[in-house]
Amino acid sequence: MDFKTKLSNITKKNNSLVCVGLDSDLNKLPPHLKSAKNPQFEFNKAIIDVTADLVCAYKPNSAFYEAGGVEGISKLKLTMDYLKEKYPDVPVILDAKRADIGNTNEGYAKFAYDYLRADAITVHPYLGKEALKPFLDRADKGVIVLCRTSNPGAGELQDLQIDGKPLYQMIAQNVAEAWNYNGNCGLVVGATYPIELEIVRRIVGDMPILIPGVGAQGGDVEKTVKAGVDKDGMNAIINSSRGIIFASSGPDFTEKAKEETIKLREEINKFRR
Amino acid sequence: MDFKTKLSNITKKNNSLVCVGLDSDLNKLPPHLKSAKNPQFEFNKAIIDVTADLVCAYKPNSAFYEAGGVEGISKLKLTMDYLKEKYPDVPVILDAKRADIGNTNEGYAKFAYDYLRADAITVHPYLGKEALKPFLDRADKGVIVLCRTSNPGAGELQDLQIDGKPLYQMIAQNVAEAWNYNGNCGLVVGATYPIELEIVRRIVGDMPILIPGVGAQGGDVEKTVKAGVDKDGMNAIINSSRGIIFASSGPDFTEKAKEETIKLREEINKFRR
Repeated sequence: MDFKTKLSNITKKNNSLVCVGLDSDLNKLPPHLKSAKNPQFEFNKAIIDVTADLVCAYKPNSAFYEAGGVEGISKLKLTMDYLKEKYPDVPVILDAKRADIGNTNEGYAKFAYDYLRADAITVHPYLGKEALKPFLDRADKGVIVLCRTSNPGAGELQDLQIDGKPLYQMIAQNVAEAWNYNGNCGLVVGATYPIELEIVRRIVGDMPILIPGVGAQGGDVEKTVKAGVDKDGMNAIINSSRGIIFASSGPDFTEKAKEETIKLREEINKFRR
Repeated sequence: MDFKTKLSNITKKNNSLVCVGLDSDLNKLPPHLKSAKNPQFEFNKAIIDVTADLVCAYKPNSAFYEAGGVEGISKLKLTMDYLKEKYPDVPVILDAKRADIGNTNEGYAKFAYDYLRADAITVHPYLGKEALKPFLDRADKGVIVLCRTSNPGAGELQDLQIDGKPLYQMIAQNVAEAWNYNGNCGLVVGATYPIELEIVRRIVGDMPILIPGVGAQGGDVEKTVKAGVDKDGMNAIINSSRGIIFASSGPDFTEKAKEETIKLREEINKFRR
C-alpha cells in the first residue's frame, strides 16, 4: 500500500492528524530509564504503545540517533522494526532531510526505505527533481520535500523573491506540477508560519503536508489546522515532538504523553472542518 | 588546528589539490575483497595507504555507508578512526549534506565532528544561517555549504533569478558576508559548471571551495583549476571519487588508484598559476 493511502486509512481509523515526533534525545530521557539496556528504544516503545491508536504517523528524527553514532542508529533500527511489526498500519516518516546527486541518493533511499523500512522520508529540494529520482521513482514510498521550514531564520533563503513570488512557493509549485509524477510527494511547512501554510495548501490541493512546530516551537493549533488541512479536513500531518514525548520526565511519562496526544488530537479535531 | 589551516598545510606539503572521494559502494568493490571481514574498510585502508602523500583531503560520502545500515556505518567509523590515527594531518570532509533546525543540528554536529571526528561536513543551505549555528559555531571545524551542485538538474532551483542574480550567487554572498563569522565556511561548486565556479570564486575570495565532478562526472580539469583556485593557486579541493577508487576492479586496484591520483595531481598543478 502506498504512503498516501496508508496515511488516509489511519487518519480515518484513529480520527487523528497527530504525528508524534520520536526525537528521543538520550540526554532528555526520564532518569529512571537510563539504566535500561537500550534506553532510547525502551522509551520509544513505551511512547508508541500508549499512542498508536491516537496518531496518523510517527516521525523519528535521525539526528537524535546519529548523535550516538552506530550505537544510537541501532536504536533507531530497533524502533523502526518494532513499529513495522506491531503497528504496520501506522506510517513512519523518517525525518532525515537527505538529498545528494542521483547515484548517491540511491544509498540514502536504501537506508530509509529498505533498511529502516520507512514509509516516507524528508528531503531537501536544493538539487532539484532530477537528483531526487531515486526517491521519486519509489511509487510505494513518500517523498516529503522541505518547503517552508519552522525555524525562525527560515525566510533568509525561502522568502527570496523570484518574479514576485517567494522561493518556497516556487518549490511548492514545482513539486505539485512536476516532481509528483507518482503521486507520492508531500511538503514540509512549519506551523510557525500559518499564512505561508495556507498559501501552500492552495497551491498543492490534497497533497500531504507535514507540519512541525506546534508544541515546544509555539505554533498555534487553530491557525495551523484551518490553514493546513485539505478540503476534506485531511492530509495535514501535524507533528509534536518535545511537547508530547517529554511532557513528563518522571515514571508517569507514558501517561502524560498519552494525555498530551489526546489533548492535541481533540484540539485539532475541533477545527478540522 | 582549524580546518582551513590544516587544508593549507597539507596542500603545501603534498603539493596537491586532489581530494579522494571514498564513495566505497559495497557492490562495486574488487571481487577479491568481498571475502574480507570488512570489505569496505579494507578497501578504504588500501586506497588511503597509497594516496595519503598525494592528496589535500579525503571525502567519504555517508550515503554509501548508510546504504548498509548500522553495519555499513560502522565501516565509515573504522575508516575515520584509521585516518585520524595514521594520517592526522590530512583533513577529512564528511560528505553528508545534512541540515535541520537548530536544536536538531546539534545531533548532526555531534555525529560528524565528535563521533566521526571529521574536520568538515557538507550542509544544505535551505534553512538559513540561523539553523546552521551548531555547525558554524564550531570554529575549529569546517562547514561546507552547497552552492552550485554538479548534477545535470542543478539549475532547476539554483539558477532561479533573484533581482537579476541566480540563487546560488546569493548563497555564496550570504555565506561570505554573514555565515563565515568564524572563518570556517566553504562552498560546494561542481566542476561540471566552470563558469559558475569562476563567478563564485570572485565572490568569496580565498574561501575553500570543494569541487566534485571531475573524472566520472566529466568536469574538465583545466577549466576547473583556472576557475576554481584562489589568487595563490590554493583553496580548491578538487574531488574525484569513482575515477580514482574504481580505476581498476582487479587486484591492481591500489596501483591504478595511485596512478590516477598522481595523474590528476600533475594535471591540476600544470594549471594552478
